[in-house]
Amino acid sequence: MPKTKTDATGAETSFHTVNGIANKITFAMIQTNFWVGDIAGNVKKMHALAIDAKNRGADIVIFPELALVGYPPEDLLLRPTLGERVRTAMAKLAEIEGIVIILGYPHIDHHGTFNSAAILQGGSQKGFYHKQVLPNYGIFDERRYFQKGRNQVLFDYKGATIGLLICEDIWHDAPIKALKDEGADLVVVINASPFEIGKQAARKALLAKQSATHALPIIYVNTVGAQDDIVFDGGSLVMQADGSVAHEGSRFLNQLMIAQFDIQSKSFDTQTKAPLVLSEESEMYQALVVGLRDYVNRSGFKGVIVGLSGGIDSALTLCIAVDALGSDRVYAVMMPYEYTSKISLEDAEAQAARLNVSYTVCPIFDAVAGLRSALAPLFANSEPDTTEENLQARARGTILMALSNKFGHMVISTGNKSENAVGYATLYGDMVGGFDVLKDVYKTDVYRLANYRNRLEDNPVIPERVITRAPSAELRPDQKDQDSLGDYEALDNILRMYIDEDLGYKAICAAGFDPETVEKVLGMVDRAEYKRRQGAIGTKITKKSFGRERRYPLVNGWSIKG
Amino acid sequence: MPKTKTDATGAETSFHTVNGIANKITFAMIQTNFWVGDIAGNVKKMHALAIDAKNRGADIVIFPELALVGYPPEDLLLRPTLGERVRTAMAKLAEIEGIVIILGYPHIDHHGTFNSAAILQGGSQKGFYHKQVLPNYGIFDERRYFQKGRNQVLFDYKGATIGLLICEDIWHDAPIKALKDEGADLVVVINASPFEIGKQAARKALLAKQSATHALPIIYVNTVGAQDDIVFDGGSLVMQADGSVAHEGSRFLNQLMIAQFDIQSKSFDTQTKAPLVLSEESEMYQALVVGLRDYVNRSGFKGVIVGLSGGIDSALTLCIAVDALGSDRVYAVMMPYEYTSKISLEDAEAQAARLNVSYTVCPIFDAVAGLRSALAPLFANSEPDTTEENLQARARGTILMALSNKFGHMVISTGNKSENAVGYATLYGDMVGGFDVLKDVYKTDVYRLANYRNRLEDNPVIPERVITRAPSAELRPDQKDQDSLGDYEALDNILRMYIDEDLGYKAICAAGFDPETVEKVLGMVDRAEYKRRQGAIGTKITKKSFGRERRYPLVNGWSIKG
Repeated sequence: MPKTKTDATGAETSFHTVNGIANKITFAMIQTNFWVGDIAGNVKKMHALAIDAKNRGADIVIFPELALVGYPPEDLLLRPTLGERVRTAMAKLAEIEGIVIILGYPHIDHHGTFNSAAILQGGSQKGFYHKQVLPNYGIFDERRYFQKGRNQVLFDYKGATIGLLICEDIWHDAPIKALKDEGADLVVVINASPFEIGKQAARKALLAKQSATHALPIIYVNTVGAQDDIVFDGGSLVMQADGSVAHEGSRFLNQLMIAQFDIQSKSFDTQTKAPLVLSEESEMYQALVVGLRDYVNRSGFKGVIVGLSGGIDSALTLCIAVDALGSDRVYAVMMPYEYTSKISLEDAEAQAARLNVSYTVCPIFDAVAGLRSALAPLFANSEPDTTEENLQARARGTILMALSNKFGHMVISTGNKSENAVGYATLYGDMVGGFDVLKDVYKTDVYRLANYRNRLEDNPVIPERVITRAPSAELRPDQKDQDSLGDYEALDNILRMYIDEDLGYKAICAAGFDPETVEKVLGMVDRAEYKRRQGAIGTKITKKSFGRERRYPLVNGWSIKG
Repeated sequence: MPKTKTDATGAETSFHTVNGIANKITFAMIQTNFWVGDIAGNVKKMHALAIDAKNRGADIVIFPELALVGYPPEDLLLRPTLGERVRTAMAKLAEIEGIVIILGYPHIDHHGTFNSAAILQGGSQKGFYHKQVLPNYGIFDERRYFQKGRNQVLFDYKGATIGLLICEDIWHDAPIKALKDEGADLVVVINASPFEIGKQAARKALLAKQSATHALPIIYVNTVGAQDDIVFDGGSLVMQADGSVAHEGSRFLNQLMIAQFDIQSKSFDTQTKAPLVLSEESEMYQALVVGLRDYVNRSGFKGVIVGLSGGIDSALTLCIAVDALGSDRVYAVMMPYEYTSKISLEDAEAQAARLNVSYTVCPIFDAVAGLRSALAPLFANSEPDTTEENLQARARGTILMALSNKFGHMVISTGNKSENAVGYATLYGDMVGGFDVLKDVYKTDVYRLANYRNRLEDNPVIPERVITRAPSAELRPDQKDQDSLGDYEALDNILRMYIDEDLGYKAICAAGFDPETVEKVLGMVDRAEYKRRQGAIGTKITKKSFGRERRYPLVNGWSIKG
């Protein structure tokens, strides 16, 4: 007897046993990436994985949230041909015999568009569930596209009653409680849950609470891979009804996971290996690698160009690029000028050599001289100032872009979150590029990650001196970043409170920081919005990244002190 | 007796006659701009305007939607000190004696944040209404910030029952119908309704329909002025219960409007002058002027720099800049190179002279030579290609930015919507700047606006030859834009269908366009997303502008043909 609720939505029927072991349900959880917009490619991939799952004895194969169109599809959801494309694709998937398929897809009917989970079996769609809680905060714009689902959906399989949820649903109490009340024996949640530092621990804590509170086993399938500035970190989970972890997927890796549910005992088999715990540095670093790799590969670029300065930001960026793409796809360019120290030249060369990447030195003396000469008649009566510093940065930017145009590699930029926050960067200069690898990495975390990466090797890939010397933009004699920005430790602490925690001037001062410094820093952050708006995207790793997650007016009259 | 409904919200009381003429209610409608975030400044402005309205005999003064914080405040709504700032400001406004004040403000309580209208009188807040229909499409993200209101709010004044609505509410039937059912004699709608071509005609048609259908007079107060890429065009309206217009505010201008409501006949006095109808060119042009003016002034820049090429885009941009800021705040720079024709030099100089702006010639030979010299060792074995063209554009961009850095003027860019759509522009080259004046103006409309602007003067400000000659980027010998882009008329028609109307490949081909051209153009639009993402903002004038209104993934696998 199907324990289903079928108003607008709902599973229409229960299912016959099709596969596997009696009294057990074998689930295959597909933790992989489906490319945004590429419906045909995604269907092909799903088809192969469903067959693979069936061959491995699975009764039910589960694909992540919106797997059919990738996540987040953004305004592709508004394209008029989407409905037709989805229907064709779903019909093709339903043809797969011998396994029940649960997948995320955009459901389009006369009620609107829904973020839905389909249940396919033996030639047709047996049911569908519409996501009830639509996130519309942070990076999420789901209410721009989707109507809210209003019904629980459960279906019977081998006598077990399975309830469906999608991502944000499980972060709220009502949907899972309703499934329990309607008799669910276990809950399947499909997700496209983005990474940020500490996210997997938060997910585990949440799922432990939800499964234990409602005495319900939970299967949580997450996406993996990157889309633009968002990385999905996998880490799919199978929870017992007591809130303990039965299985945990790898982080940042594609995986087909098998979990067996015992219908009698209402519990899962447990994985033998210890659960995977990544250090904070490790998960940050892997997120950055995956974010860059997927962006470059999907953009169709052969490789990337990095301007090396001899400093730590470009050194770390180079490591990440090599780990993401391989040393043969990374091209390092050092562009020295008058203020470039000998140490910087040596260290840039050493970094490139240790990582085995192509290394070119392209001095910018002629470029800067040419620009200054063109400007000379107009600058005759003025004193040198930051204009001349910016000319150096823009000469470098132009050279990097020329190399990109000529040889077909993408320029990646190296600005970190601290610099992006306060606008310590030159627009159209060091900010040029298609992807800013460290965009969401605070300077103090740049140091942590550089040390982390060095610890992974017998011989450190970043020369020790790069880490220990005081950072400098080297745009004038004896320039030190900290002369402009103060101590990075204090700066980052203020920035974390202002940006990541959304605290105001008074609260930050109350935490013990010098009011004058706080006012100065907050003012710099607000005034730099126009630079950030024209900056490259970069992988989100913190609680609040610059970009779609933080939407501020460019001109506004907000007063910092209130 | 107050005919109000007061669950969570609601007007608490009816009002005493405080002012004006018996049997008539005199409304003052404030059509002006309140700066986003500048709560203290907005309160000061409101205070002065409320006193002004009282002195002119008004019983009730009406300020637009979210006037207290400006529109759209975006993530400023998430700042933790906002609630306290709003409470302080509201208390200050409530002190104004002798007039009822209706204003838009963010209402923050334990239920969340609402987009609300307050009724203030004689020292306290008498009631509040929460917007019921929250737009979350196009440029709007209101569900990111606001909870939905669920109640009608009406209040009695001199025996008339007045219902309140906010912007999107009036575009739907339910809220006004509910007000009618609850006994409203007239409806006050406060708005922050953004401009797009034809918007005022659409508003009038809507309000005529709503007032006539429900036999309700309507007061519709709109904001005026620009915030970043959005322009509010005013055009506030007073509708009789039969759907006819009693008063219409100016477009694009600040205004305090007075409208008198006769309580007996339930009708308004009518304005004597004929209603204002702007031509399409006129409203487009004014929107561009207001958009640029408010952005530059609020950014705190003394003036703007425009790179003149001798072509029509920079010529029109120069006109708009002069009309927005005055000729003494506009600096034109011509940056000739090898491929710059004599005609271009002559025409650029003539434009600047006719508009009486500072004109400088800064040849880029040395700049390009310097950049090429720096790159020579790396380009030794390669043939010239678009890389060298981009070098010219980037040398110009760098020079403009150097002038901006040195003299403190903002660079404005001149790329039109057709070019932005297909990516016919150089990132960090001609795309540099803080504001792209023609960003949302199709090339064919650039011609219309140039001709329109010329017709306004006895002596055309744009030399005729600029309008008649074939457009060229002049980056190589005998280059014509149309060799790369085809005929602009056809291009713009395809772009309008694809971008503004969201039609797909098949539908556009079905409209009679060459399938090969359609495929090429659509592919160019999709591939240029990464350039647009780093481009300057510019005033929205079409149905769908690039920017927050059109959110596409940078990398995606969507296939144009499906």
